[in-house]
Amino acid sequence: MQLYSYFRSSAAYRVRIALNLKGLDYGVIPVNLAAGEQRSDSYRRHNPQGLVPTLVTGNEALTQSTAILEWLEEEYPEPALYPRDALLRAQVRALCQLVACDIHPLNNLRVLKYLKGELGQDEDAVRLWYAHWVIEGFTALESRLPEEAFVNGEAPGMAEIFIVPQIYNAERFAVALGDFPRIRALRDRCDLLPAFQKAHPSAQPDAPASSPAGSGPSGT
Amino acid sequence: MQLYSYFRSSAAYRVRIALNLKGLDYGVIPVNLAAGEQRSDSYRRHNPQGLVPTLVTGNEALTQSTAILEWLEEEYPEPALYPRDALLRAQVRALCQLVACDIHPLNNLRVLKYLKGELGQDEDAVRLWYAHWVIEGFTALESRLPEEAFVNGEAPGMAEIFIVPQIYNAERFAVALGDFPRIRALRDRCDLLPAFQKAHPSAQPDAPASSPAGSGPSGT
Repeated sequence: MQLYSYFRSSAAYRVRIALNLKGLDYGVIPVNLAAGEQRSDSYRRHNPQGLVPTLVTGNEALTQSTAILEWLEEEYPEPALYPRDALLRAQVRALCQLVACDIHPLNNLRVLKYLKGELGQDEDAVRLWYAHWVIEGFTALESRLPEEAFVNGEAPGMAEIFIVPQIYNAERFAVALGDFPRIRALRDRCDLLPAFQKAHPSAQPDAPASSPAGSGPSGT
Repeated sequence: MQLYSYFRSSAAYRVRIALNLKGLDYGVIPVNLAAGEQRSDSYRRHNPQGLVPTLVTGNEALTQSTAILEWLEEEYPEPALYPRDALLRAQVRALCQLVACDIHPLNNLRVLKYLKGELGQDEDAVRLWYAHWVIEGFTALESRLPEEAFVNGEAPGMAEIFIVPQIYNAERFAVALGDFPRIRALRDRCDLLPAFQKAHPSAQPDAPASSPAGSGPSGT
């Protein structure tokens, strides 16, 4: 399998974690969002929306991270990333969608560009916008996370796959996370695991040699 | 089952269609988003985020429409709303997520309120914002829809469950849909079916006696 990825893309980061947790072999093909490579004809052949990630398997190009993750879980069921119980699975999916629908889309690069360009907002207004949606979402998330271990129990799964990249993103935009000790502790536990380390933006082939957290937004 | 719903909420509309397509019996409990009922303590006991929909089954309250829809498909597999083939299923989920992640979150009521309030944007700027994300998403969607029948073939399924409410929403905001003949034709075919008719905002118990399409935004 080949993953079209951008090191800082949250959605690509999710899929990298899942591929690693399942122990699957894959190659990373960087798509430089900052340089606009996602709009090239050659990339749009795989992904007509011009978004990352795209997972190519055989002759198929799969798009949209949530759809890719569900497909991975169906095709490579072990280790399971969802709980076996249907109601618990629904609860985990709700946490994932809280991140995927209620936080991340509002803070995507194309949206921040629109705020600055078409709406003429300055850097401060954009940072407040970014922080507003993260804090609203994380406030709902915090109370639903465990104090120890992981959402599914002893091993990380889909919830962590969505949450960890969103935290990375929030810290890059200097959102204060002091009110979210469970969220931070969950991330700290994940960061100890090779599947998460290998998926981290700083470990990607397209990461700059030095990529400090505060080097500014260029793709979310 | 009881569905906490608001007549104009796209996410609640999705779940109503699915419940109807599966022939399930359910009651609708209206939550008046325009009056702020979603922020009441009594509602937040079911849905801590204060969003609709919530589906209550037994002692469980399920939140986030995508999670609810996946649960319905798992628990009530007939009629199937996804294709049987895993790759086709991934493609349908990608269409659903295109609506759920790339269009709808940007045009949600809370976002439009932020644009008007915190960012001081006028009605025209908000309408342009709304139309921008709909048109970007629908442009990607249009070429991926069939000219006849439904995305899954002879019967509507998850793709139509996400697309039809988004069209209703777009028309309410007077977005010009002339460039999207397949999207409009798909909606017209769905509108002939009782499952879609019964789920329509105008057929809900909380719909005003007369609810013209142009009566302005109060909940998406």
